[in-house]
Amino acid sequence: MTTIKPAPPGHLPFDATFRATFRDLVLWRRDVRRFRSDPVPEKLLDDLIELATYAPSVGLSQPWRFVKVKSRRRRRVVWESFAAANARALEGYDGSRRATYAGLKLAGLKEAPIHLAIFSDESTLIGSGLGRQTMPETLRYSVVAAVQTLWLAARAEGLGMGWVSILDPAAVTQALDVPAGWTLVAYLDMGWPAEEHLDPELERHHWEARHYSGDLVFER
Amino acid sequence: MTTIKPAPPGHLPFDATFRATFRDLVLWRRDVRRFRSDPVPEKLLDDLIELATYAPSVGLSQPWRFVKVKSRRRRRVVWESFAAANARALEGYDGSRRATYAGLKLAGLKEAPIHLAIFSDESTLIGSGLGRQTMPETLRYSVVAAVQTLWLAARAEGLGMGWVSILDPAAVTQALDVPAGWTLVAYLDMGWPAEEHLDPELERHHWEARHYSGDLVFER
Repeated sequence: MTTIKPAPPGHLPFDATFRATFRDLVLWRRDVRRFRSDPVPEKLLDDLIELATYAPSVGLSQPWRFVKVKSRRRRRVVWESFAAANARALEGYDGSRRATYAGLKLAGLKEAPIHLAIFSDESTLIGSGLGRQTMPETLRYSVVAAVQTLWLAARAEGLGMGWVSILDPAAVTQALDVPAGWTLVAYLDMGWPAEEHLDPELERHHWEARHYSGDLVFER
Repeated sequence: MTTIKPAPPGHLPFDATFRATFRDLVLWRRDVRRFRSDPVPEKLLDDLIELATYAPSVGLSQPWRFVKVKSRRRRRVVWESFAAANARALEGYDGSRRATYAGLKLAGLKEAPIHLAIFSDESTLIGSGLGRQTMPETLRYSVVAAVQTLWLAARAEGLGMGWVSILDPAAVTQALDVPAGWTLVAYLDMGWPAEEHLDPELERHHWEARHYSGDLVFER
């Protein structure tokens, strides 16, 4: 059911203008937690998901499984899991750090029109196990590559996405009633962002700063 | 040392032309194992690495550590680890599947001018643990998001990249003499591709096919 028509070879316009705009896309991608509540067309979401399946996967295993979470009851379970995990995390910080943490907005689960859970099917036979005998985690890593592809593609459409990792993955997996052998890789909320920023929310609110200065690169 | 100058807000040209070209970029990204041997400018690699550090990371932990593997001795250890793991993997297949596997080219380690190992620093204090109490694997997932960003950015420059997962990560980590607490996430080879293809190598050589038909999307 592929709707994507690629450009023919020899006509790939990955020129300097495109590359500069791609850099801007990477720089302007944000983990969004402040959403407007107006809906996102289902077709747009489906197109983004399809594009994400062109991410690399180990042995062409394509282990990604996308679950649109629409049930209010299930969403509430997820939100409660977030709230409980977030309260426990807060207890781990002291003093001013605790106050800063308490002031952070770490998820947009209540406002976001879209909840999307992405699993790795650890039982898949697709790819016949190629490439993942010694590093089986590459199956889940393939799903992460799809998540980042989705994130960039969404941003190019003006759509915001946030990755909510402060939750109990076992509780969320159970609430979503998925086949045995599926591992939760990412729980995402998506929607139109209420704000646009170049700096990450955690930097703007004084939790952490960017550290790049070439000291992350080594030679051996 | 940031060299990247983002476009100002309100001037982001993520228009229909850009989005269509971005789709082509995703579709034309390949796991490349057939490289030309001519060198890649170090500056280009450094710029790509810097852009990759704008990937999302849990709690803004920025756990990615990039190791350029230049030593012939260390590269040989990696190649030998690949050869041994690949021979063991071959033994796991029978009949025609085994013959197909034996005919696949699964790495370009000998030809590729660049070897790049990317680790996750599991001991980092950056981000103060935010977001990864319940899903600690998100630290490594952040590194994968950087890998996929690097992959797309490299492709936009015409540069090929391959992810070699058929190796013993412990042996490779030891050979690279990195700090304790670093986990190998990806061993990459990079260089100018000898061929351009829209279809994955594993599809072209009859190992596996793409399976997308909307049956990877579910509702709950």
